Amino acid sequence: MQINKLGEFGLIEKIARSAAVSDPQVVKAIGDDAAVVSLDRTACLLVTTDILKEGIHFKKAFSSPFVLGKKCLAVNLSDIAAMGGTPRYYFVSLAIPPDTQYGFIRELYRGMNAQARRFGVQLLGGDTTASQDSLVVSITLLGRAVKRQVLYRHGAGPGDLIFVTGTLGDSALGLMLLEKGVRPAYNVLVKRHSDPQPRIEAGRALACSGAASAMMDISDGLAGDLRHIMKQSGVGARIFLDRLPLSAAYRRECPKLSADWYLPALSGGEDYELLFTVPRRNEKRVQALAGKLRLPMTCIGEITDTKQGFTVLDERGKRLRLRETGFRHF
Amino acid sequence: MQINKLGEFGLIEKIARSAAVSDPQVVKAIGDDAAVVSLDRTACLLVTTDILKEGIHFKKAFSSPFVLGKKCLAVNLSDIAAMGGTPRYYFVSLAIPPDTQYGFIRELYRGMNAQARRFGVQLLGGDTTASQDSLVVSITLLGRAVKRQVLYRHGAGPGDLIFVTGTLGDSALGLMLLEKGVRPAYNVLVKRHSDPQPRIEAGRALACSGAASAMMDISDGLAGDLRHIMKQSGVGARIFLDRLPLSAAYRRECPKLSADWYLPALSGGEDYELLFTVPRRNEKRVQALAGKLRLPMTCIGEITDTKQGFTVLDERGKRLRLRETGFRHF
Repeated sequence: MQINKLGEFGLIEKIARSAAVSDPQVVKAIGDDAAVVSLDRTACLLVTTDILKEGIHFKKAFSSPFVLGKKCLAVNLSDIAAMGGTPRYYFVSLAIPPDTQYGFIRELYRGMNAQARRFGVQLLGGDTTASQDSLVVSITLLGRAVKRQVLYRHGAGPGDLIFVTGTLGDSALGLMLLEKGVRPAYNVLVKRHSDPQPRIEAGRALACSGAASAMMDISDGLAGDLRHIMKQSGVGARIFLDRLPLSAAYRRECPKLSADWYLPALSGGEDYELLFTVPRRNEKRVQALAGKLRLPMTCIGEITDTKQGFTVLDERGKRLRLRETGFRHF
Repeated sequence: MQINKLGEFGLIEKIARSAAVSDPQVVKAIGDDAAVVSLDRTACLLVTTDILKEGIHFKKAFSSPFVLGKKCLAVNLSDIAAMGGTPRYYFVSLAIPPDTQYGFIRELYRGMNAQARRFGVQLLGGDTTASQDSLVVSITLLGRAVKRQVLYRHGAGPGDLIFVTGTLGDSALGLMLLEKGVRPAYNVLVKRHSDPQPRIEAGRALACSGAASAMMDISDGLAGDLRHIMKQSGVGARIFLDRLPLSAAYRRECPKLSADWYLPALSGGEDYELLFTVPRRNEKRVQALAGKLRLPMTCIGEITDTKQGFTVLDERGKRLRLRETGFRHF
């Protein structure tokens, strides 16, 4: 079987099955936004890693190396945010094509450093190698969390409300604009794609509050990512299309770029917003948190029994047929 | 300036300078075999990461994917060994060309898993992406150590003896044989190149014993790597060529493969042996350790004053002029 037929998630599952973990210090191994290892009675270590490849995850023409550096770290920060943790240390490995200008690499690190400083994170190491072809950026980020506050993908229960932070689909539209040749600096959607904001503060606040039952970040698109929560929590989910939080720029640009007004918001990747579930009794606490953080937290649906599967209801309550539910690398 | 003119070490230094670390928990950031972060009063976390690229670090034709998997993890294990630590958890990121057979990836993981089990290490996560071109394997390995036992590159003092474990240069000769078309399975030198043995046990024993003053692993060649100890310890070093520990296979094959009988041992990369310095009063303890572990530990020279620089003396005590002192990626 070739990898491109297996799909990324099938591959990860097969790997996870072949790597049974018996270590009592390991709280969570493969399968969540970050691995969780117990440090002492109250604290745990979070570890996440992402590999980004030129031509697959980014194009040099689509952003400056500084902004690219910011994004490379943001992708990892978002995984720590999704567990409710505090990011601490990062490690960068690069495979660098030999014709790369030193200024490009310097700006890439300057971007990572700028992002890191914003969140109190420090570069502690890495590795560099030559590449015969394209640039590869592989980052590992370590974080810390209070053990009993960590939010996993597996905690959602039937009846819980489904929330997202911020707005959805902006990044997907931004990428479409970039591919049409729109200049990076002049568009809010492009900025959302090139320079996503990891929701560290919101993730920590949700974890501290105890208001949420499950959490992850939206990197592969709402619909695809929600399926991970469904699978790991053993539940179904119902999404109401007319509740998806859309930015003004989305409402303005989407009709020009997408046949379906909802598709970028429902299935577009790289929003790096938080997707979380909330027992109904905690709804008001989430609204209070959103107000305090000045970050929209929108209820977009509810967790159902696993037998009901995944349904998306349109404005008239009609069930949608989904042609696409997420982003696949392979 | 292009990267290939800057060199890998120049790049790492520039990065290290731009990432000043003020965190009191960080014992060692960039510049050693692994980063060291304090966990509590006695323990610390070790973190190392390596990126390996097809065509640069390995060729698919030169070993089975199983053995390649073993080596990818061994390279990281060797870094934890070099600090005197115990390896614990690893994370694997892969960039996979789309025509890759699933069996290849399965065997790669099976090799990593086999190596991991041998050392009590567990796979806790990772990431996969498509690659348009060659395979990239990026591994981050976490380990643990007793804080006051950790061995750094900066501890060597004038008068200390310089030791290495095992034998030197076998891996470099093995690679030459592979490039000449020798089949992997039938040659001990090739095996030393393709399936290096990380010196975890020796590294821990040396750290526990308190006998050594500095340590690192030999990945880029003895001469090149010793310069890191010299630089970070602020010392010079004198190596005696006739003391370099050579295997029987090395003595047999080297004359056919290299113009200089000592060059693969002095400058060849990927031995993954330990290079460490020992105050003279501890020499006997190191010899006792070597006997107990049944691993040769050979004194190959001595640390000198920094002004004396790096000298290599031949059999007649004549100073050697070095044309090559290490392996450069760029």
